[in-house]
Amino acid sequence: MEKRQQILVINGPNLNRLGKREPAIYGSSTLEDLQKDLEKEAAELSLNVTFKQSNSEGDIIDWIHDSENVHQGIILNAGAFTHYSYAIRDAIASVDVPVIEVHLSNVHAREDFRKESVIAPETIGQISGFGFLSYKLALQVFRSK
Amino acid sequence: MEKRQQILVINGPNLNRLGKREPAIYGSSTLEDLQKDLEKEAAELSLNVTFKQSNSEGDIIDWIHDSENVHQGIILNAGAFTHYSYAIRDAIASVDVPVIEVHLSNVHAREDFRKESVIAPETIGQISGFGFLSYKLALQVFRSK
Amino acid sequence: MEKRQQILVINGPNLNRLGKREPAIYGSSTLEDLQKDLEKEAAELSLNVTFKQSNSEGDIIDWIHDSENVHQGIILNAGAFTHYSYAIRDAIASVDVPVIEVHLSNVHAREDFRKESVIAPETIGQISGFGFLSYKLALQVFRSK
Amino acid sequence: MEKRQQILVINGPNLNRLGKREPAIYGSSTLEDLQKDLEKEAAELSLNVTFKQSNSEGDIIDWIHDSENVHQGIILNAGAFTHYSYAIRDAIASVDVPVIEVHLSNVHAREDFRKESVIAPETIGQISGFGFLSYKLALQVFRSK
Amino acid sequence: MEKRQQILVINGPNLNRLGKREPAIYGSSTLEDLQKDLEKEAAELSLNVTFKQSNSEGDIIDWIHDSENVHQGIILNAGAFTHYSYAIRDAIASVDVPVIEVHLSNVHAREDFRKESVIAPETIGQISGFGFLSYKLALQVFRSK
Amino acid sequence: MEKRQQILVINGPNLNRLGKREPAIYGSSTLEDLQKDLEKEAAELSLNVTFKQSNSEGDIIDWIHDSENVHQGIILNAGAFTHYSYAIRDAIASVDVPVIEVHLSNVHAREDFRKESVIAPETIGQISGFGFLSYKLALQVFRSK
Amino acid sequence: MEKRQQILVINGPNLNRLGKREPAIYGSSTLEDLQKDLEKEAAELSLNVTFKQSNSEGDIIDWIHDSENVHQGIILNAGAFTHYSYAIRDAIASVDVPVIEVHLSNVHAREDFRKESVIAPETIGQISGFGFLSYKLALQVFRSK
Amino acid sequence: MEKRQQILVINGPNLNRLGKREPAIYGSSTLEDLQKDLEKEAAELSLNVTFKQSNSEGDIIDWIHDSENVHQGIILNAGAFTHYSYAIRDAIASVDVPVIEVHLSNVHAREDFRKESVIAPETIGQISGFGFLSYKLALQVFRSK
Amino acid sequence: MEKRQQILVINGPNLNRLGKREPAIYGSSTLEDLQKDLEKEAAELSLNVTFKQSNSEGDIIDWIHDSENVHQGIILNAGAFTHYSYAIRDAIASVDVPVIEVHLSNVHAREDFRKESVIAPETIGQISGFGFLSYKLALQVFRSK
Amino acid sequence: MEKRQQILVINGPNLNRLGKREPAIYGSSTLEDLQKDLEKEAAELSLNVTFKQSNSEGDIIDWIHDSENVHQGIILNAGAFTHYSYAIRDAIASVDVPVIEVHLSNVHAREDFRKESVIAPETIGQISGFGFLSYKLALQVFRSK
Amino acid sequence: MEKRQQILVINGPNLNRLGKREPAIYGSSTLEDLQKDLEKEAAELSLNVTFKQSNSEGDIIDWIHDSENVHQGIILNAGAFTHYSYAIRDAIASVDVPVIEVHLSNVHAREDFRKESVIAPETIGQISGFGFLSYKLALQVFRSK
Amino acid sequence: MEKRQQILVINGPNLNRLGKREPAIYGSSTLEDLQKDLEKEAAELSLNVTFKQSNSEGDIIDWIHDSENVHQGIILNAGAFTHYSYAIRDAIASVDVPVIEVHLSNVHAREDFRKESVIAPETIGQISGFGFLSYKLALQVFRSK
Repeated sequence: MEKRQQILVINGPNLNRLGKREPAIYGSSTLEDLQKDLEKEAAELSLNVTFKQSNSEGDIIDWIHDSENVHQGIILNAGAFTHYSYAIRDAIASVDVPVIEVHLSNVHAREDFRKESVIAPETIGQISGFGFLSYKLALQVFRSK
Repeated sequence: MEKRQQILVINGPNLNRLGKREPAIYGSSTLEDLQKDLEKEAAELSLNVTFKQSNSEGDIIDWIHDSENVHQGIILNAGAFTHYSYAIRDAIASVDVPVIEVHLSNVHAREDFRKESVIAPETIGQISGFGFLSYKLALQVFRSK
Repeated sequence: MEKRQQILVINGPNLNRLGKREPAIYGSSTLEDLQKDLEKEAAELSLNVTFKQSNSEGDIIDWIHDSENVHQGIILNAGAFTHYSYAIRDAIASVDVPVIEVHLSNVHAREDFRKESVIAPETIGQISGFGFLSYKLALQVFRSK
Repeated sequence: MEKRQQILVINGPNLNRLGKREPAIYGSSTLEDLQKDLEKEAAELSLNVTFKQSNSEGDIIDWIHDSENVHQGIILNAGAFTHYSYAIRDAIASVDVPVIEVHLSNVHAREDFRKESVIAPETIGQISGFGFLSYKLALQVFRSK
Repeated sequence: MEKRQQILVINGPNLNRLGKREPAIYGSSTLEDLQKDLEKEAAELSLNVTFKQSNSEGDIIDWIHDSENVHQGIILNAGAFTHYSYAIRDAIASVDVPVIEVHLSNVHAREDFRKESVIAPETIGQISGFGFLSYKLALQVFRSK
Repeated sequence: MEKRQQILVINGPNLNRLGKREPAIYGSSTLEDLQKDLEKEAAELSLNVTFKQSNSEGDIIDWIHDSENVHQGIILNAGAFTHYSYAIRDAIASVDVPVIEVHLSNVHAREDFRKESVIAPETIGQISGFGFLSYKLALQVFRSK
Repeated sequence: MEKRQQILVINGPNLNRLGKREPAIYGSSTLEDLQKDLEKEAAELSLNVTFKQSNSEGDIIDWIHDSENVHQGIILNAGAFTHYSYAIRDAIASVDVPVIEVHLSNVHAREDFRKESVIAPETIGQISGFGFLSYKLALQVFRSK
Repeated sequence: MEKRQQILVINGPNLNRLGKREPAIYGSSTLEDLQKDLEKEAAELSLNVTFKQSNSEGDIIDWIHDSENVHQGIILNAGAFTHYSYAIRDAIASVDVPVIEVHLSNVHAREDFRKESVIAPETIGQISGFGFLSYKLALQVFRSK
Repeated sequence: MEKRQQILVINGPNLNRLGKREPAIYGSSTLEDLQKDLEKEAAELSLNVTFKQSNSEGDIIDWIHDSENVHQGIILNAGAFTHYSYAIRDAIASVDVPVIEVHLSNVHAREDFRKESVIAPETIGQISGFGFLSYKLALQVFRSK
Repeated sequence: MEKRQQILVINGPNLNRLGKREPAIYGSSTLEDLQKDLEKEAAELSLNVTFKQSNSEGDIIDWIHDSENVHQGIILNAGAFTHYSYAIRDAIASVDVPVIEVHLSNVHAREDFRKESVIAPETIGQISGFGFLSYKLALQVFRSK
Repeated sequence: MEKRQQILVINGPNLNRLGKREPAIYGSSTLEDLQKDLEKEAAELSLNVTFKQSNSEGDIIDWIHDSENVHQGIILNAGAFTHYSYAIRDAIASVDVPVIEVHLSNVHAREDFRKESVIAPETIGQISGFGFLSYKLALQVFRSK
Repeated sequence: MEKRQQILVINGPNLNRLGKREPAIYGSSTLEDLQKDLEKEAAELSLNVTFKQSNSEGDIIDWIHDSENVHQGIILNAGAFTHYSYAIRDAIASVDVPVIEVHLSNVHAREDFRKESVIAPETIGQISGFGFLSYKLALQVFRSK
């Protein structure tokens, strides 16, 4: 029997405020809603998801390190760290796990500082602008591999 | 009976060279392969796709204009025009059809000039880095609406 | 009997969407309305106008070339090409026909990229911000010569 | 009987040197000639014009303030202040009188520093490059309102 | 008997329009209201205030010069001069009177050009964003010295 | 009986070194001195203060989140995070608690990198340059609301 | 018998105006003169030349695509497209035909915007400043291969 | 008998504070001392000097205008206006009187903003760094003509 | 008997991945190997070393604070924090312990963002490019003091 | 009998390492090979060549000066001096001898700093990318004059 | 008897071409004329001058070093080295001899690259724009010391 | 018997002024002291050192060339050339001898222009900030190879 792919979903700073934070941009569903949605979608795709959130850069780096030989893919919404955390970029480079960068909103259509992702050069791709669907599409990418 | 959504897929400059052009970056499948793949995927999703390609900025602008009241969504891979065609950006702003920007390769991990999309501020989202799958995920976004 | 001045009016990309496109910025009159307005105004000023629109940079360059020895002035709304088409700039430099740059909206009060006109150094002047009136004032400039 | 529109014409620094200053760029007519021309034109358009010039930023700010409830439009050639006087920009923002920015020469075709107008974001439009005619066209804009 | 500290309050360009200018940003109270408020507050703090406003850079420079040996502190809202008047900066450096920079609105949250204060390197501190209270807090700073 | 306002005071990285760190810039009083000063001042203003310090960005983000429905205002000295932590900026945007940015020294008069605050666009105002008094003035702002 | 090398000569925007356009910079010979010159030179070098010109970016991209397996070299004067057409750059990258970039005038000695060639990274070399001779030298490069 | 050359010496903002302002940079002599020094030096050189100072940009522009046909040379220390007053630059361009730019301190060795002179392109030369001697050397330049 | 110098070795983010991470750049030895190497080298130099690693900026700041009066020197490889952590820079400034910045690879020969060290202005020197030897040389610097 | 044209070939820094230096970029032939090649080519074109190389900027400037009235053309490969030696640029401007700038490799396709030639504005043209052939083509340019 | 001051005059690259080089900018007198003029002027001022010129940066650095304890002042026209030779700047900083920077033309009114002097921060002043007189005024500065 | 490694030590411009130049930055020992120190250290490490200094870029390039097959390592303090000599960078790239870049002072903590090393991309590492020790550590690096 084929072993299920283990996918790690990491949410960065302020995503625990989802549903409470700027609903005009991010919608009114919460991080718990997102987790349920992804677990349901993963089950349908025969994937396993582990779900984490932290406001600390160090936690995110640790989780990326720990994913090696445990997870077959990471879905990473690094929040504002996307735009300045070269340390997270280096963390991704230091493991053999493919990372997909996701964003709820279309970051390319917002403030200038949100247009550059310093982590992108170490990821396999980026999906931004589709709310929860951004994450679900990333699951499908891993499923298709 | 519900009417099927009509999705317009526009490929910009040099995408007709797909499969022949820099296979290390873009793979060996051709634009015709992409078209077949998308038609198959669309059928499964109960969507209709129209498929176009041009190396001329003017054609792409015309097609975007003509999509109003005809298509319910546009999947646009504007190729290199992504990085300087403010005219295509204005074309998107001039119609009520939602546009998803797609890229075969992860443009954020390549040359600096490929990091900025001047059309992004008028699109609903961006998917880059997953080859043909980038387009199929975009179809799903429209399906989910 | 004095021969009437022939004035060429060229509208660039997306101006065919006038009246349908972002009415908050551009108003609800159409390009056909503009053409009629200008023909009426020209008649009053004893000028002849020829009216063209294209979404293709190449067409606009061709028309500028063809104007030599045919038209005594060009009124050019190059749309978004204003901001990056050095080819149109060179086209203007390559003919002896004076060109006036016009814009419906006040481009100097919008996004940063709309503040620079790369074609301006080859034109005789610029009128922006007055809707159709921008064009009619340009007609008067040619009339006064 | 309809009351005539009162239009204030403000000329900024060095425009009192008109006719004496760099005639290759600005022509040989003087500021007095301009005043006469505009008064004649205004009369034909059934407008009243008040004509002022100062080399002091403070005077220009004061005149803009004083125009409220007195004038229905301002034609402003702020000279070199155009390129750095954020104070004049704020003055325009502080009154309800529409302002048209005019320039004798085509400022977009000269030194780089003359290409940016810091006051433009608070004006309704800009006319540059047509000598005295730049002002007369501005009068027509107000007439047409 | 201790002599009261003399505090000079200088308001720069357009602040005479307070209450009439962009009330969404600046509120509906007037400069006269501000003067009364400050005089009342000063009385409570046993300070004397002198209150001046000008739209002219030269006046502000003169007043700063004249404050030496007369005032023990200056509260300066230089308005838009804040962002380009190196002459006012030099004026502050040329006297021994401490200057506090105040702003009604939070200038750091507005247009980019309002983020840099060229006079700040010669002031002792900056208070911005609290309306009239910005000035009153500055009075307290002088009181506490 | 009116309920007292709860004010949260957050000090960022290196402020625990106060009194030991660069006394020429920051003075010789310690963070404990600051806490006592603020508690005394708060008592006089009938406010309650909670006082926290951390060298970790994640802690500061967590505390900002937790302040919702608990505190009515935050006084934030984010130390060096002020200049690059877009994550703290997003944290402020994610809660309904007004934040005042304070600095002991006049950051606008120091190194260039200290002149820009990336968090300022989400705060209500900024007070910098007055040592402990910067915080006390912030308390008064909340008191006056 | 050895087969002759087929060389494609592509001239971009405004080069059809040669001889009529800015003769101080470009000389008084026409594009037809250039074609004759090159055909004569090619004959002497036992090369075949095909000669094309267009003002449209799309045409140039199409011709570059079509050259594969047909031509053994391309001489490209992309005119003003040299400075912004990333799409032409990608077209060159998409074929196996070596491209030499030529310019009539010394582009490095003119306006700043003419100093950067965005297509150069995909060409084998550049010859600029020698009028028609620039093209003939390029023919010799191909002959020498 | 030969008529003496009339030289106008204009001092800009804050130079009235000379001797009182930052003596480490500017020395302890006053503007009156400078005037006496220059009058003495001028007498020896058989030149006449007129001496003016203002903190207002408008005054300086007026004086430059008024110098035409009256003075044969201007020695201008525009103080901080040197670095942003394009209006003074235009004033110099508008008269036929040669202008020498002088500075007491070596402006090229101070803050970055003091390195660029926006008026220099319209002056005949610049002398900086020699205190009062800077002005006296300028007198000699005019004497030598 | 002379007391041995206590040297603190701090490794920043991703250095725990040493040996596993990008061996082409960083070699195949691990952080434990480094620790052993340094302890051996320190013993030979009669120094004591304490060895720490964290992926969290806050930990590094805390350790720098705690080193005062405990350690006589810090060897700091701040990893990617080197390039943006102004908070670590301030931490170094807040203690009296000399810090040497070390890097395994030659950071000046890699991506542009790795060329600037924001912490360097507060360190006594930098050694980069020699693998473990970079650290050992730093030990010798402290030994030589 | 017509006198032969004297052509001076100057090679700048590191070109003496040709054949030994980075053969992937510069090929394996040596500077002596180049000299022989050029002498042979020159003989065929009835030109005389003088051949020099130096690693010193001063030598190159001297040789350019000495060429006046001796040589009718200079072929200059200034090596890395191309990108910063304004002194060589001025040297070219100071003589009446036409200079052609040559490069072995296509400098426009390499590191960013190699894209700008500070000497180009004083040369008649540039040939880059064709190895020794770059020099031979330059000889032909002089022959054709 | 007082010992005469020894002044070293150093002329940098291309100044040996004086009189032959771009006479519109630099006049038709030669370097020998300049030397004679300065020797005559020095004699009148009871100064001794030593006169040197080189096109080599190294020579100029050597001469500056050798001036210590020999010369009491240096007049330096570093030509184009002015704009990039940080090595000459360091040379000036390494001796106790005051240096005056002179230029024949008004460098502030020419190409952008000529506006910045990298050596200025180590000189006592700058005189530019007055031809030979620039040097003679510098002699007077040293005389006046 | 193993042959000793030959190490070449090259000191660039102004280092001959060591001990005389800015002792606050560079200390009071001389270049001769440095040479003796290094010869002693080398002897202890069983290395041979050759010691050179020049103020001429050309000399340094020549010495780097000549080191091939003679020296096994170069210790290079290029002084101010570090920041602009692309020619020295190319010289290093043209030989197979490893180069270590050293600086007496911590160049990363000084003026901005000293922060970038244009030669670093061709060196194996950099040591800066430790005075003579910087060189001795470099010797150890070569010893350890």
